Amino acid sequence: MRTDVEIRVAGAEDWPLIWPFFSQIVEAGQTYAYPEGLTETTGRSIWMEEPPGRTVVAVRGDTVLGSAKMGPNRDGRGAHIGTASFMIDPTYAGQGIGRALGAYIVEACRADGYHGIQFNAVVETNTAAVHLWSSLGFEILATVPEAFDHRHHGLVGLHLMYRKL
Amino acid sequence: MRTDVEIRVAGAEDWPLIWPFFSQIVEAGQTYAYPEGLTETTGRSIWMEEPPGRTVVAVRGDTVLGSAKMGPNRDGRGAHIGTASFMIDPTYAGQGIGRALGAYIVEACRADGYHGIQFNAVVETNTAAVHLWSSLGFEILATVPEAFDHRHHGLVGLHLMYRKL
Repeated sequence: MRTDVEIRVAGAEDWPLIWPFFSQIVEAGQTYAYPEGLTETTGRSIWMEEPPGRTVVAVRGDTVLGSAKMGPNRDGRGAHIGTASFMIDPTYAGQGIGRALGAYIVEACRADGYHGIQFNAVVETNTAAVHLWSSLGFEILATVPEAFDHRHHGLVGLHLMYRKL
Repeated sequence: MRTDVEIRVAGAEDWPLIWPFFSQIVEAGQTYAYPEGLTETTGRSIWMEEPPGRTVVAVRGDTVLGSAKMGPNRDGRGAHIGTASFMIDPTYAGQGIGRALGAYIVEACRADGYHGIQFNAVVETNTAAVHLWSSLGFEILATVPEAFDHRHHGLVGLHLMYRKL
């Protein structure tokens, strides 16, 4: 990754810079099972986490290149396992931003005391993501068959991926 | 199951009769990763589903013996897989009410056009539930290790269970 990229906690002022690529990625229908016809308000409520979760951005100067969010995967007696989601602006794909955000989130979850990190729904055809998470120590625990309706490939599986911390 | 038990869609008037055993089961800390210190209002928002989901009750006369809720497991491109949750009043355990609710929900999900049903978090020490779902055609796709903090057993696994429809 270029060394002029910084990862920091996102503030409300970052959301308008996240929404354009966030909405583009959801609309593409290849990676996220978010509601259809998502409005900017709903998108913000999905993406901008409240404590104990948080949302971060990868920035270069004033440009937001990608974002990630993290928090407990479940409430109450399941809250010691974390989860996270990632959105990289396709304009900046292939620059190592997903990897930098992934590594940051793993360390942030460790620092927050989570025992492990669970990704609930990694689309099996999103091989770049599957390879990235595998390289960061995640393993596929299961694949729910045909659980995602991919815009181009039709029904494909969703991986549950997990990494112990 | 005794033949005088009926399963029907729950209305708002049923919630006050669900809440006592719902809160007892959550408080027992053995089966559900719901928020700590759950209020009745939060409980209702968790349990009483809005369309396209719905909540049902198993009743004998005016007595609510158990309840189940169902709906899409994910939004958007994942909404063709259903999910469900079950609460049986411990007073009426062992009377086949869980099985009757489970069979009802499987058929209701089939009628609603879901392609499959996914249970995201079946506590592995809840062997009665694991056996029941297995007998209704569900299989364990994965067990997330130590993902549930059981009040008596400490950290135990959560099964992801799935049944194709």
